[in-house]
Amino acid sequence: MRHIDERGLMQRWIAWTWLCAVFLLAGCAAPQSRTGADLASWNDGPSRAAIVDFVKAVTQPGSPDFVPADERIAVFDNDGTLWSEQPMYFEVLFAMDEVRAQAPSHPEWKTTQPFKAVLEKDNAALAKSGHQGLMTLIAATHTDMTVDQFAQRVNRWTQTARHPTTGMAYTSMTYLPMRELLDYLRANGFKTYIVSGGETEFMRPWTQAAYGIPPEQVVGTSFVAELQTVDGELQIMRLPKIDLVDDGPGKPVGIQRQIGRRPILAFGNSDGDLQMLEWTTAGPGKRFAGLVHHTDARREWAYDRQSSVGRLDKALDAARAQGWTVVDMEKEWKQIYQSEKP
Amino acid sequence: MRHIDERGLMQRWIAWTWLCAVFLLAGCAAPQSRTGADLASWNDGPSRAAIVDFVKAVTQPGSPDFVPADERIAVFDNDGTLWSEQPMYFEVLFAMDEVRAQAPSHPEWKTTQPFKAVLEKDNAALAKSGHQGLMTLIAATHTDMTVDQFAQRVNRWTQTARHPTTGMAYTSMTYLPMRELLDYLRANGFKTYIVSGGETEFMRPWTQAAYGIPPEQVVGTSFVAELQTVDGELQIMRLPKIDLVDDGPGKPVGIQRQIGRRPILAFGNSDGDLQMLEWTTAGPGKRFAGLVHHTDARREWAYDRQSSVGRLDKALDAARAQGWTVVDMEKEWKQIYQSEKP
Repeated sequence: MRHIDERGLMQRWIAWTWLCAVFLLAGCAAPQSRTGADLASWNDGPSRAAIVDFVKAVTQPGSPDFVPADERIAVFDNDGTLWSEQPMYFEVLFAMDEVRAQAPSHPEWKTTQPFKAVLEKDNAALAKSGHQGLMTLIAATHTDMTVDQFAQRVNRWTQTARHPTTGMAYTSMTYLPMRELLDYLRANGFKTYIVSGGETEFMRPWTQAAYGIPPEQVVGTSFVAELQTVDGELQIMRLPKIDLVDDGPGKPVGIQRQIGRRPILAFGNSDGDLQMLEWTTAGPGKRFAGLVHHTDARREWAYDRQSSVGRLDKALDAARAQGWTVVDMEKEWKQIYQSEKP
Repeated sequence: MRHIDERGLMQRWIAWTWLCAVFLLAGCAAPQSRTGADLASWNDGPSRAAIVDFVKAVTQPGSPDFVPADERIAVFDNDGTLWSEQPMYFEVLFAMDEVRAQAPSHPEWKTTQPFKAVLEKDNAALAKSGHQGLMTLIAATHTDMTVDQFAQRVNRWTQTARHPTTGMAYTSMTYLPMRELLDYLRANGFKTYIVSGGETEFMRPWTQAAYGIPPEQVVGTSFVAELQTVDGELQIMRLPKIDLVDDGPGKPVGIQRQIGRRPILAFGNSDGDLQMLEWTTAGPGKRFAGLVHHTDARREWAYDRQSSVGRLDKALDAARAQGWTVVDMEKEWKQIYQSEKP
């Protein structure tokens, strides 16, 4: 055995344990700092308190309401809950932008409704085309192409399109307080999902960057798809046939299909989220249901019971009857979009 | 300021850093030891080497084939890949056991095919009922009940039923080397999924315990479901209508629907997995495709091109043509089931 200098060994050992301690602290620092202080854009109001109380109750070991980390499933509606939805769902604005972009390849659209109405900006004719017209627009701009082709169109749109009244990129119109809430939940061991009436593949290209939510945690309305060989390559082709309408009573079905267990926290903003909130709170143990209430006409939009987009009527009654958390955007959010001066 | 004994402080500091180091080592020990040595039931053969080489290539920072952790999606067929599938798919054996268990409530089954054949153990009549008969059996035992009711039946069956020839519980007939492979991949940052022709809700009640795979990472064949109020409670009702056949060309569709990105590793054992393996390997960058080849008539079953269950024919040709990994169970697995003496 070689001679080893005892003092040098001791010094190296101290250095090594010190290095280990530093790494340990670095590893633990992030979770330890997530105690609610990170909900920086939330005023100290009833909603923030309810959220923090709930998260403490289900995460503190020894709490009577403790929930193991792998069962901490949190689901969020998207339109009006994580980003804005006025003057109409952004996905409909995408479809109309796409009709304009693709029009040169579709001369027949000049004389066919509802495409004609979009190209001529004839809102009366567009409204007259109704739900069927909307579905025609969505199918024409979302299907008969591969998943990859559609993702490219969505990416081009999120990078270039601007909102008609704010002039902002659509993915800048996400709510900062809700993004903080997603971060806060994940830091507390929750798995965060989107459960939206929007189409799944319309959201997947940008939800990781916008919300930290990966493709496999996006549940939405979907089209039937099929494996095909296109130009010698395997492709998933999107067919113009609805697979699941992930809205209203379809949301618990979408949750069961893709997640396979009941969430313990759900957030929505409209009657389309009612069944998701009911489904979540009907499970055993402590549960959290939240509604974003659009009360801020100055910084965003103010609407609820009478709105044609994002109507909040029955779900607001249910929230009040059952003590769900209703977030008053105007009073409870210091800041709505990242770009605002706080 | 109080007087502090310098030597005592030093000792406490050393004790503290030592404690930190111990915690650090405890936290890091599991991942650090996962370098392939954990594939303890795999002989040092070509398959083990190919797996370890692939995992090293995609996980080592600086490797030209490095893949970020969140894109390390690994998909596994279930029947014949993670557990046995002879003399027929275990889910079919479950359906037959269920017909016998539920027969007292269905007197009409005594005179109606294919139920009559099951109750009389008339295999010739059962075979004669063909694919349609099988679908009738599956629908009658899987649907027209809530997701919770079905899960209870599956749980009772996995706890009490025994395989007709081995006498083992079905969930004991999982392959130890594949369970080690799942652990090894997860320890290396992979997210592991089941992508099976089996029905999703038939698998979800037991995949966490059997494989460490949670409900949200189970992709399978599915029935249409619907939210209903049953006895005053919201329930997800399973309807007797197929939603997705997650087999053959349906597997890449199921992967896109539930995961939304292309796997970098796929494992199967039959022609039903061919498109999943092709879809996986057709993506850019380094990919891994593996097939479990049932070559061990003594410890399990030996079958491939002529088998009516789990036929491995076209996929075996594709594997040989494209250099996919074909696992020779007899030669490459030291042990098949946990219960065997190694």
